[in-house]
Amino acid sequence: MQHIVEALKDKYLYQDKVIDSTKSILEFQIFISDQVTNDFNTLFQSLPVDRSYYAFGVPGSFYDRLFPSRSIHFLHSSCAINWFSKLPKELLDEKSPTWNKGRIHYVGASNVEIVNAYVAQFEKDMEMFFNARAEEIVPGGMMVLVTPFSGYVCLLGFFGSSFMDMVNEEKLDESLVDSFNLPLYYPSPQDMTKVVEKNGLFSIQRMELINIKSNLVDEADAKTLMMSIRSSIEGVIINHFESKLAEEACARTIIKSEEISEWMKVNYEKPSILFVALKRK
Amino acid sequence: MQHIVEALKDKYLYQDKVIDSTKSILEFQIFISDQVTNDFNTLFQSLPVDRSYYAFGVPGSFYDRLFPSRSIHFLHSSCAINWFSKLPKELLDEKSPTWNKGRIHYVGASNVEIVNAYVAQFEKDMEMFFNARAEEIVPGGMMVLVTPFSGYVCLLGFFGSSFMDMVNEEKLDESLVDSFNLPLYYPSPQDMTKVVEKNGLFSIQRMELINIKSNLVDEADAKTLMMSIRSSIEGVIINHFESKLAEEACARTIIKSEEISEWMKVNYEKPSILFVALKRK
Repeated sequence: MQHIVEALKDKYLYQDKVIDSTKSILEFQIFISDQVTNDFNTLFQSLPVDRSYYAFGVPGSFYDRLFPSRSIHFLHSSCAINWFSKLPKELLDEKSPTWNKGRIHYVGASNVEIVNAYVAQFEKDMEMFFNARAEEIVPGGMMVLVTPFSGYVCLLGFFGSSFMDMVNEEKLDESLVDSFNLPLYYPSPQDMTKVVEKNGLFSIQRMELINIKSNLVDEADAKTLMMSIRSSIEGVIINHFESKLAEEACARTIIKSEEISEWMKVNYEKPSILFVALKRK
Repeated sequence: MQHIVEALKDKYLYQDKVIDSTKSILEFQIFISDQVTNDFNTLFQSLPVDRSYYAFGVPGSFYDRLFPSRSIHFLHSSCAINWFSKLPKELLDEKSPTWNKGRIHYVGASNVEIVNAYVAQFEKDMEMFFNARAEEIVPGGMMVLVTPFSGYVCLLGFFGSSFMDMVNEEKLDESLVDSFNLPLYYPSPQDMTKVVEKNGLFSIQRMELINIKSNLVDEADAKTLMMSIRSSIEGVIINHFESKLAEEACARTIIKSEEISEWMKVNYEKPSILFVALKRK
């Protein structure tokens, strides 16, 4: 946050050549938003005491309105819009080609309809996201979105394999695995361009895939990687499976770290993120 | 909060005779502030889902700045400004007449210097409070403050008596009790008038002592009353005494409920609050 504040302050003070007398009244108001179930207590206690901005917590879903009209000048979302507002219901129809048998995600799914259902939900969600933000962001205001693109994404399947191992050992009914799908979509630049243009309320100022340096990937440190992925997906897994089964599947996946590490050495995929800077028209 | 929003909406829509076309764009932004150690998670989860306002949490002390300049139109503080920013340090000087021997509060203190130290701290704190709010509230903006005035105040002494009982039983060193003072001051209308006028940035629109109906007091239900007081002061007690001693003193006070109930029947003091509505000049 401090970096964003400093960058905005520089832009305001130098590029816009603001007269000296107004420098002293430059104030920043930062709103940190997350789902209502987020741990805001820990967030608030971790804010620097000598911060140079006013800080606020905002509980709620960003697929809905969070702020009054035309009240936001700059918005940043990091690794969040890849989470769906809800799972597409087609994925729950056992009779449909979108029934994701034996898998928990669209990556590696055998059927293109499954991928299409994910894409369609991403497009619906982004339309809601853009419409809400378009009301809140001032004309000319900026929105910078960052989402994971490649790297850790393909590792998600190992959690699915652990659940299927448990099915094969008759510890778990397969329909419970088939009916579970991670509500995560990783948009490509093409996906992002399409939803921005369809919505029409923002213009793309810059978009790029950025390779990120990861010692964990370079060193094929699968154990640390899988533990990190587990921490982000464990909540939705526990919500679907009972927590004992979820715990077992996660523990089994971590145990497979050496095997995953070997797999990574062969199937190395440079991790990258999609960066997009949008401007409210 | 809903009541405040409704009252402001009514005022805006009817008294100010706003034209119809603007009615639909009336939006309310509510900031709920408390110390950073407050449980904001529970607060956020208890907000109504279908609320008609945007809600934000604001961690920090209200004796410091919390909001950007001229960003607040209406401020309400209920039973909060009676808590000091810190305890006056004179109360910690064993050689001074402000050493509050055998007591934990100014109410019932034997020495007027002790009361004066509390009053002086209240005045310093309110000056900080008014100066911070005067920057944040728009000219003409309102501030409604409510503080307890009488009723439960005199019951605080029973917690002090329990600590002194423990001193007499040699379970506790008396200096630990003497050096503890509840950081709470209950201003009178005269106290409040003095600090508002000294500060000079707000005008008093209305001030009154309001008797509040309390079945607990009417029925001399000392047990429930003492448990309620315990919940509000236990934090500062634990911070000073070790938690086992604090726990014992509180439990002993609750056990005395029957005795306190009898005392209440004789010394009945109608509970009242100080209500003050201030306007930013």
